[in-house]
Amino acid sequence: SRSIRLAVIPGDGIGQEVVPQGLKVLSAVLPQGVKLETQEYDLGARRWHVTGETLPDAELESLKNHDAILLGAIGDPSVPSGVLERGLLLKLRFVFDHYVNLRPSKLFPNTATPLAGRPDIDFVVVREGTEGPYTGNGGSLRTGTPAEVATEVSVNTAYGVERVVRDAYARAAARPRKKLTLVHKTNVLAHAGHLWKNIFDKVGAEFPEVTTDYLHVDAATIFFVTQPERFDVIVTDNLFGDILTDLAAAVTGGIGLAASGNINPSGTFPSMFEPVHGSAPDIAGTGKADPTATVLSVALLLQHLGYEAEAARIETAVAQDLAERGDTPRTTDEIGDALAARVSG
Amino acid sequence: SRSIRLAVIPGDGIGQEVVPQGLKVLSAVLPQGVKLETQEYDLGARRWHVTGETLPDAELESLKNHDAILLGAIGDPSVPSGVLERGLLLKLRFVFDHYVNLRPSKLFPNTATPLAGRPDIDFVVVREGTEGPYTGNGGSLRTGTPAEVATEVSVNTAYGVERVVRDAYARAAARPRKKLTLVHKTNVLAHAGHLWKNIFDKVGAEFPEVTTDYLHVDAATIFFVTQPERFDVIVTDNLFGDILTDLAAAVTGGIGLAASGNINPSGTFPSMFEPVHGSAPDIAGTGKADPTATVLSVALLLQHLGYEAEAARIETAVAQDLAERGDTPRTTDEIGDALAARVSG
Ligand SMILES: CC(C)[C@H](C(=O)O)[C@@H](O)C(=O)O
Ligand SMILES: CC(C)[C@H](C(=O)O)[C@@H](O)C(=O)O
Repeated sequence: SRSIRLAVIPGDGIGQEVVPQGLKVLSAVLPQGVKLETQEYDLGARRWHVTGETLPDAELESLKNHDAILLGAIGDPSVPSGVLERGLLLKLRFVFDHYVNLRPSKLFPNTATPLAGRPDIDFVVVREGTEGPYTGNGGSLRTGTPAEVATEVSVNTAYGVERVVRDAYARAAARPRKKLTLVHKTNVLAHAGHLWKNIFDKVGAEFPEVTTDYLHVDAATIFFVTQPERFDVIVTDNLFGDILTDLAAAVTGGIGLAASGNINPSGTFPSMFEPVHGSAPDIAGTGKADPTATVLSVALLLQHLGYEAEAARIETAVAQDLAERGDTPRTTDEIGDALAARVSG
Repeated sequence: SRSIRLAVIPGDGIGQEVVPQGLKVLSAVLPQGVKLETQEYDLGARRWHVTGETLPDAELESLKNHDAILLGAIGDPSVPSGVLERGLLLKLRFVFDHYVNLRPSKLFPNTATPLAGRPDIDFVVVREGTEGPYTGNGGSLRTGTPAEVATEVSVNTAYGVERVVRDAYARAAARPRKKLTLVHKTNVLAHAGHLWKNIFDKVGAEFPEVTTDYLHVDAATIFFVTQPERFDVIVTDNLFGDILTDLAAAVTGGIGLAASGNINPSGTFPSMFEPVHGSAPDIAGTGKADPTATVLSVALLLQHLGYEAEAARIETAVAQDLAERGDTPRTTDEIGDALAARVSG
């Protein structure tokens, strides 16, 4: 009989509140025969304050024994900026080689968008997850003096770019519109730009059915607000992908609905699924957090593990829930209950 | 008697069409006693095709003998990407030490914005112009092979960051709301982020009247579309500034209205004023280009040279022209004429 061994990292702030809702919906949607084994990991701000640890080796090893990871959110104002981001979240993405950071954007009916005229938005950003400006390369010299020099090195390899670009082509080929847009800044970042563009063109020859486009990152932000319907699949580097997917979340009704998967397509390591939003300490504990992004991340998780029908049921449930919701605000728990009821109904 | 020695680089595509309108309005607004001496430089795609030159030393020397430079747009699909951008536009910014790249964003009445609800937008981005990921540092190894590694190095110096941050504080202090937001990605780009944040805090002590804020660049894009009224002055690095100002132009009615100044505050070298838009080869020659961004760049030029009243007259003229325009599309020339008439009237 089948089973899912799931590692759960609720993390900080509203992460603690949205993750239980994701699990609730996951349990409700899974077929009878599938056993769900969850193991919770106490990682994040609390742990760091108590032990000074972000992600100890033993935990990292133990995480490998799972089919997937569900993560809530990481980060708290009480911890110096970057400590948990780099020591925990990015460490997981890098060590588990999550080179496909998958971030779908869809404007659901009956959701608020800051854009006038409600354009049709349904695209996926394939953000590279293991290289680029996120490697931590660089350093500083004469730190804290008037003669300081600080550098950040964006590292891009043919190996790393080709695998994510090929993944993006395959995703584009599997969608009805079959369009892939590369976003970079080749006219200024010429070394990395050349590498990305060359590989984009080369791999494109394997996917003649996919229409391609290229946009500089600055121009891409314009189209995100003036013509988002022009996008189908986007492939881009780690930093541009970070920026563009927050913007994408904003135009599709907010960060409360944006799901993501940090995927290791080879399956060597567990993939990790998390809402794009952060720990939101300002609303933590109030019951106001929207668990929908986490629930949609659970759908990505199911898709990744081959439970296509169950993933689709969650997406339909979310679309219906948004379409039919009234004006009365609901708590985190109420939204989770409503979604769980829909997927099991 | 006073005079303005102006270097003019119309450049490519619609640059050739909008620059004459900028000059028309400049002539119309200048007081009787001020002599305008213009010298045109033939730089851009045509020149490169004919001579292979982007910016010869002799021209660079000659450009120094001017009080300011008015530039239209640079770039053409017939020239390999990056050649003119780096060999001409960025070279001017770097050699003339244009460390303040000033980009105001204002939502004028009666202009289209993709944002529902028409928020109040009136902010200025102070984009660093001479360092960061724009230095061309980095390179590639085993280029074109499956083992290629390509790097881009963002170079940040205390010298470079402090001067632009101080300029931004001074601009914030001179505005009614007196608010300065630093945008960076300190939680990931920790070396450069630390430098920027430290200097931002240190210089802030000299400006106790200025309220400060910090945002990660990804979060900043969200607020650009959901709450742009929260911004007054923004200071950020070269690449983040590039991205954010295109987005800012998009939400304030389009790239056709976005002006910029590449400023060398010390006056050692001439400052350069240019619309944020590019050469737009698709509409070049059709008379459809909106010269308003160039005309507003002329206002920034006048402000920089101390002609405050004249700069203000141009801004008022643009606001009135936009408010009173009808539905009939106007040509580049007609808009230039209308603005020239308003400023001289
Ligand atoms: C928290 C931060 C390190 C992270 C990132 O920059 O990748 C976040 O913004 C995201 O997009 O998942
Ligand atoms: C053309 C390009 C090099 C330039 C830049 O990236 O600075 C442009 O996008 C701008 O913003 O002025």
